[in-house]
Amino acid sequence: MSNTYSLVNPFDNSPLGEYEYTPWATLENQLAMLKEGQLSQRKTAAFQRAGVLNKLAALLKEHSEEMATLITQETGKTILDSRVEMMRAYNAAIASAEEARQIQGESLDSDAYAPAGGKIGVVCWKPLGTILCITPFNFPINIAIHKIGPAYAAGNTILFKPGPQNTASAQLLVKLCYEAGMPENTLQLCMPEFSDLDRLNAHPDVNAINFTGGTAAANAISAAAGYKKLLLELGGNDPLIVMDDGDLEAATTAAINHRFATAGQRCTAAKRLFIHANVYEAFRDLLVEKSSKLVVGDPMKDDTFVGPVINQGAADQIRTLIEQAIEDGASVALGNQYEGAFVYPTILENVSPTSEIMVEEAFGPVMPLYKFESVEEIIPIINNTAYGLQAGVFSQNLATIKELYEQLDVGTLAANDGPGFRTEHFPFGGVKESGIGREGIKYAIREMSYTKTLVI
Amino acid sequence: MSNTYSLVNPFDNSPLGEYEYTPWATLENQLAMLKEGQLSQRKTAAFQRAGVLNKLAALLKEHSEEMATLITQETGKTILDSRVEMMRAYNAAIASAEEARQIQGESLDSDAYAPAGGKIGVVCWKPLGTILCITPFNFPINIAIHKIGPAYAAGNTILFKPGPQNTASAQLLVKLCYEAGMPENTLQLCMPEFSDLDRLNAHPDVNAINFTGGTAAANAISAAAGYKKLLLELGGNDPLIVMDDGDLEAATTAAINHRFATAGQRCTAAKRLFIHANVYEAFRDLLVEKSSKLVVGDPMKDDTFVGPVINQGAADQIRTLIEQAIEDGASVALGNQYEGAFVYPTILENVSPTSEIMVEEAFGPVMPLYKFESVEEIIPIINNTAYGLQAGVFSQNLATIKELYEQLDVGTLAANDGPGFRTEHFPFGGVKESGIGREGIKYAIREMSYTKTLVI
Amino acid sequence: MSNTYSLVNPFDNSPLGEYEYTPWATLENQLAMLKEGQLSQRKTAAFQRAGVLNKLAALLKEHSEEMATLITQETGKTILDSRVEMMRAYNAAIASAEEARQIQGESLDSDAYAPAGGKIGVVCWKPLGTILCITPFNFPINIAIHKIGPAYAAGNTILFKPGPQNTASAQLLVKLCYEAGMPENTLQLCMPEFSDLDRLNAHPDVNAINFTGGTAAANAISAAAGYKKLLLELGGNDPLIVMDDGDLEAATTAAINHRFATAGQRCTAAKRLFIHANVYEAFRDLLVEKSSKLVVGDPMKDDTFVGPVINQGAADQIRTLIEQAIEDGASVALGNQYEGAFVYPTILENVSPTSEIMVEEAFGPVMPLYKFESVEEIIPIINNTAYGLQAGVFSQNLATIKELYEQLDVGTLAANDGPGFRTEHFPFGGVKESGIGREGIKYAIREMSYTKTLVI
Amino acid sequence: MSNTYSLVNPFDNSPLGEYEYTPWATLENQLAMLKEGQLSQRKTAAFQRAGVLNKLAALLKEHSEEMATLITQETGKTILDSRVEMMRAYNAAIASAEEARQIQGESLDSDAYAPAGGKIGVVCWKPLGTILCITPFNFPINIAIHKIGPAYAAGNTILFKPGPQNTASAQLLVKLCYEAGMPENTLQLCMPEFSDLDRLNAHPDVNAINFTGGTAAANAISAAAGYKKLLLELGGNDPLIVMDDGDLEAATTAAINHRFATAGQRCTAAKRLFIHANVYEAFRDLLVEKSSKLVVGDPMKDDTFVGPVINQGAADQIRTLIEQAIEDGASVALGNQYEGAFVYPTILENVSPTSEIMVEEAFGPVMPLYKFESVEEIIPIINNTAYGLQAGVFSQNLATIKELYEQLDVGTLAANDGPGFRTEHFPFGGVKESGIGREGIKYAIREMSYTKTLVI
Repeated sequence: MSNTYSLVNPFDNSPLGEYEYTPWATLENQLAMLKEGQLSQRKTAAFQRAGVLNKLAALLKEHSEEMATLITQETGKTILDSRVEMMRAYNAAIASAEEARQIQGESLDSDAYAPAGGKIGVVCWKPLGTILCITPFNFPINIAIHKIGPAYAAGNTILFKPGPQNTASAQLLVKLCYEAGMPENTLQLCMPEFSDLDRLNAHPDVNAINFTGGTAAANAISAAAGYKKLLLELGGNDPLIVMDDGDLEAATTAAINHRFATAGQRCTAAKRLFIHANVYEAFRDLLVEKSSKLVVGDPMKDDTFVGPVINQGAADQIRTLIEQAIEDGASVALGNQYEGAFVYPTILENVSPTSEIMVEEAFGPVMPLYKFESVEEIIPIINNTAYGLQAGVFSQNLATIKELYEQLDVGTLAANDGPGFRTEHFPFGGVKESGIGREGIKYAIREMSYTKTLVI
Repeated sequence: MSNTYSLVNPFDNSPLGEYEYTPWATLENQLAMLKEGQLSQRKTAAFQRAGVLNKLAALLKEHSEEMATLITQETGKTILDSRVEMMRAYNAAIASAEEARQIQGESLDSDAYAPAGGKIGVVCWKPLGTILCITPFNFPINIAIHKIGPAYAAGNTILFKPGPQNTASAQLLVKLCYEAGMPENTLQLCMPEFSDLDRLNAHPDVNAINFTGGTAAANAISAAAGYKKLLLELGGNDPLIVMDDGDLEAATTAAINHRFATAGQRCTAAKRLFIHANVYEAFRDLLVEKSSKLVVGDPMKDDTFVGPVINQGAADQIRTLIEQAIEDGASVALGNQYEGAFVYPTILENVSPTSEIMVEEAFGPVMPLYKFESVEEIIPIINNTAYGLQAGVFSQNLATIKELYEQLDVGTLAANDGPGFRTEHFPFGGVKESGIGREGIKYAIREMSYTKTLVI
Repeated sequence: MSNTYSLVNPFDNSPLGEYEYTPWATLENQLAMLKEGQLSQRKTAAFQRAGVLNKLAALLKEHSEEMATLITQETGKTILDSRVEMMRAYNAAIASAEEARQIQGESLDSDAYAPAGGKIGVVCWKPLGTILCITPFNFPINIAIHKIGPAYAAGNTILFKPGPQNTASAQLLVKLCYEAGMPENTLQLCMPEFSDLDRLNAHPDVNAINFTGGTAAANAISAAAGYKKLLLELGGNDPLIVMDDGDLEAATTAAINHRFATAGQRCTAAKRLFIHANVYEAFRDLLVEKSSKLVVGDPMKDDTFVGPVINQGAADQIRTLIEQAIEDGASVALGNQYEGAFVYPTILENVSPTSEIMVEEAFGPVMPLYKFESVEEIIPIINNTAYGLQAGVFSQNLATIKELYEQLDVGTLAANDGPGFRTEHFPFGGVKESGIGREGIKYAIREMSYTKTLVI
Repeated sequence: MSNTYSLVNPFDNSPLGEYEYTPWATLENQLAMLKEGQLSQRKTAAFQRAGVLNKLAALLKEHSEEMATLITQETGKTILDSRVEMMRAYNAAIASAEEARQIQGESLDSDAYAPAGGKIGVVCWKPLGTILCITPFNFPINIAIHKIGPAYAAGNTILFKPGPQNTASAQLLVKLCYEAGMPENTLQLCMPEFSDLDRLNAHPDVNAINFTGGTAAANAISAAAGYKKLLLELGGNDPLIVMDDGDLEAATTAAINHRFATAGQRCTAAKRLFIHANVYEAFRDLLVEKSSKLVVGDPMKDDTFVGPVINQGAADQIRTLIEQAIEDGASVALGNQYEGAFVYPTILENVSPTSEIMVEEAFGPVMPLYKFESVEEIIPIINNTAYGLQAGVFSQNLATIKELYEQLDVGTLAANDGPGFRTEHFPFGGVKESGIGREGIKYAIREMSYTKTLVI
């Protein structure tokens, strides 16, 4: 009997079940089967892969409420949040189906450079092989589809390792994939023991690793993997900037949606707010007023906005960051209240720019507000973090928007939206320690493919 | 002896020479030679075409002053203006050389749609054949290069018909093209009699017509041409909009450069100025002050900013439009002075939005100013013209810029620049009666090519 | 009461109904409504247009048998042929839905050329406005979807003019489009009188014309249209070439499918067969043997392969061409039998290369066979026609395939397939008198859009 | 005083000079300077970077003979080979200059997927930062330009670590780069001690590593680098396949050029020859006849075709592989002669498919011939190697070419050319242990850039 792990619901610690880790021998069999599956994928036409992914989208819609409930039980995300995630997962599956048909390469004229050879370079994009897809707990299904969808669309086979916390939803997802027509030798679910992770990442039949999660795990992967294609979507310490011509109504709503939803547990959450001095008080008061009305409680209830964080340990970590910020001189405009895995929406003021909460990633519902006079003042502060994922700015001033766009170390700057802006077909990913490579279905397909050129 | 035509310098009516029209028989021989030339072009590798165009760029630079002088003598453009044109022509030749190497197609997977055929579609872009390039008087060399460059880069052969006024500069240009390595059977210069134009446009060995000029000629071409690929860059009635947050210093400079340079004889000139009421006086005063200092005189002198318009007839036409606007209630802030082919820089206020000068294209140095309160007010006025080429807006407000971009019937909206914004590699062209098709070297190459697909 | 036209079933001349021509006043109202519709299209997001087109695809599938029966009654195409057409129309609607989401432009760096401006050129593709879509009788629904689909996907509105013969199927199609969610101000069906065609093509509220049909009509359109964007998919005189290493089994099957299906009434039909001398007898005997077993008769019967041509007049025209070829020295290997609108599958040998049947487009089930020794011999013969649509070659020899690809005046050369090769996403269109512009959903969307650039 | 290393000419062991390793402190200063340089690169417009690279191309041409001589002295490559390398380096510099202007992104419509936001995604490509470029000894200048050129064109700064053997030519190259206008804070040359390599690869101011070389080094890099973008162009065991319809004259010439030139020391050398049984004797005899006439000797002489391998150690390694193959049953058709660092062109027959010379990379002038009956027979043998770089096949049979293209694990299959086929603008790179990522200037620029999206 292999080792097991048990799961509880972060809201009420009710047991969610006990599961077995995947023994190494089984992992090796799965990889051998998936290597076999690469040949059957080669014989599966693009329109057939599109068909399977369209059926998967329909099944995700059909099982949407069942899956949303599972997500909420596993993660403590509110049921509203989980339903939005399922709508996004549906979109990502549709996008994967449609992008499966769009995989095209270039035809090149050899005679662009001497010597003339009169040849045509027929450049096609082919699948890398077997992709190890590793997903985090906070968006278990949407992030899984954003990996499995494009990986399968490109013709790869997939070893899917979800966050342990999401075993049940992952099992249901894989079941739906098989039901949609994905053969078992193209998709396998696994839950390796921590001790097996290094040799799994290093395994020669893992051709690429597509990982979303934290920096520590990313470092372990890249050290063990050898020269494989690594797609790493990591943390963020994203700023939300409100200029003095910004729409305060929209900005406060975005701050709340992009920081207190999912109890702040998003890589693209608005983790630091920079408010122009001319509108600071007005913004702060509106933010506190709206935030204080948010329902904190049972995530299964429709009117709950903030559920628990993933576990007590996470809550303690956030509490430490908040208390340390207060020690550094910050004052509490709202919150600084805790209850088990619950962290109440917290708004801090007068936060020192070098306080850890401003430099490190705080994975919970806490908003440090920073008052500033000029954009030049905050650019170095914003860039003074290991991360560089996304940023949001509320302003209509084109010059300000372009300056922030040029100067900030980010993958995306969303004007008049929060840093959590994401659509299925825009490139998604950051710089610095926020990772390498891009998601967004069309871009993910390219990342998980290589060029194969026929010169005729 | 075929008929002839004589040319005079619009500045001082000094004779520029007498030239022969190209007899129909010669035109037919030229087309037959150019048809032959299509085969030799097919055997010329892309890197060789790039080499020829790079040499042409070098020769344009070498002969730049000689050519600028010719342009000024032929058109009355100031020598400064002609030197800028030669720098742009150099850029366009370089861009054509480099884009000759960039001609690539797609490689498509037949199995994106049922039934699977396991085929690859190798899509290449091939030249249309012989292109009849017809250029206007105002930018005789730069517009010629923007047609000959991409046409040759794509592998076409070219029958080049310049504006009669530019015969000398066109002859020099063709000489440089031959010197650069273009075989005579790939480029021929012609000056057909007006009576031969219809049958030339209809000729079966003319595979496409790339025309810049007025609407009347465009209508004649499309009526006679039969179903040939037509690229028509026509007139414009471009607005320059100054919002109340616009940089007045930059806006007045742009208005002057984009309306009084080339004596206003540009398709993308700022032909109508829309100034927000809050900054109207400040803008008008600054504009009048700067405009009144412009030197009007001998276009060969370095300090001259405004030379004559192309001929007396053109001056009279502009005068009629100005006087009629005044009859419609307009007042003169500057100018309304005439001397032979000279129209002095003229600024009109209180112009009726339905006055002909606001609806038709005025091809001279006259600026009707229109005071407005809101963007919603001016959008229908701006769109109330047959043309739709480009527009410029001075504002930093993103919402305003996006609204104008969505609502105005134009091919390009330049933020914080004049409507004359153009670079070698941006698409250039308008909507409505401003024509069909796009220039900008990469886009022109595509327009003058067709897809040829090999299915293997 | 406006004039009317009556239709009969080409198979048995049974009446199909009497219909009214669209009066000019109604046409003008329709164009005014469609101009209005352009604004509502502007407010319809791409994903909504995709949704409508996906619903249309579903409705086409649901009504497939009903529509196939209508097509067969109107055109005499066999019910098998009509069912294939409906499957292709379904694919084309799906492709249009998916390509609606793929409409993207370029973002350009102004500083690629001096002088640096630090600007970004945001190039988007916008709909041309109202497209007049004119379709032929032979593929009434699939060709209609290949025009209406991409036109609507791009955000245009459509005035749809079917072949008179297809009024009933066109009315059903438009009904399904409305049912799918296309508002009436985005799609209107019309049947103008012949006398109104010129002024309809010239109408200022028709922004582009997307026509499939014959050369005569194309000439009339381009003469009347003024400078509008013209997409003209015209005739073809496509060759099918069988080299001595060709797969004779596959080649004879392709010849029959690409020439005797739809009673040869396809623009991409294999209208001329070029058979290498080494395999001529073997190929001819196999072709005659297979062709003689084809069932000619009631197009509504499942086992019928060849139905009547569209009408008696068409049958007479084909008969004249065949008889004239025989006069020129051709001998009959099969057929040369006629019965009302029926032309029996006819195979001719020893056809003179200059016989009209080899130079003009023969729109019926007749195959002239031409024996040849070398590829060099047949290239000039193949190119010796006004048309240049597609070609097919049965050979595995890459050098031969590439030589034919370089030398033949065609838009597509399909290796080891007939000239009728077509998929939804490959570019489709020819050169010379086969027309200008490209279909294939992604390409058609580009043709029916223009670039609109925002420079920030 | 830091440690030093001395170099000798592999031909005659004459001393080439003694050089100092770069101390760690200097490396850190260089990286700090290059980080600074990233800001100045940001302010350098694309056309300016293009200008610098064009000047570099001109300087490479001007110093071509001087550089070719240095390369020959350092590597033992023949002077002919080195001159070809300099011509390719010139092309690569020109391509880098031109591709600097071609860096463009996409403009995306947010409304392709619900919910509509009316936003435009302006996707631009930005430089990764500082690239550590590590080059091998065999093509010291062309491979360096294929890294420095696109890295600089994309706006990166570069720490350049050449093969120790190529210190002199690298110093000259860097000097020419500075002369061309590259500021010192954008390009630095270094020669770190072996012991410093791991911490250099791990250094946080190295943002990406672009390496060409062997598998061992690649493994060390990926273990040390942490999650950085890795571009690894590694070894190959490329097959040259001659079918029974192949052009034996061209195939033997390609075999010699792609295996005996550079004394076989190319990653894309034809390291295994597979000859169809029907033409085996004819091919072998022609190959032996031609190979026996090759001049082996002083690489500085124009008529020398084969110079020494890089050093005695390398010669011994190749000798071991040859002798072991003979032990495994192989017979010698030519060569198996050695003299110092010289390995005489050697042709082996009856080589066992599992002999190490067929499975491992043999970096010297030895050709194992393998006789085969069918393509199905050799595909598993060819794929039975850790590598998957390129392949060449001499055949005109399209079916064979397509089957090999689909089945072989390679990045490129060149029909009727050797596996060494390479042009500046085709994607270059392999699969499996041949590395990750693609070179070819346009592709390398993309690899060394990331998307930065502005959502407006």
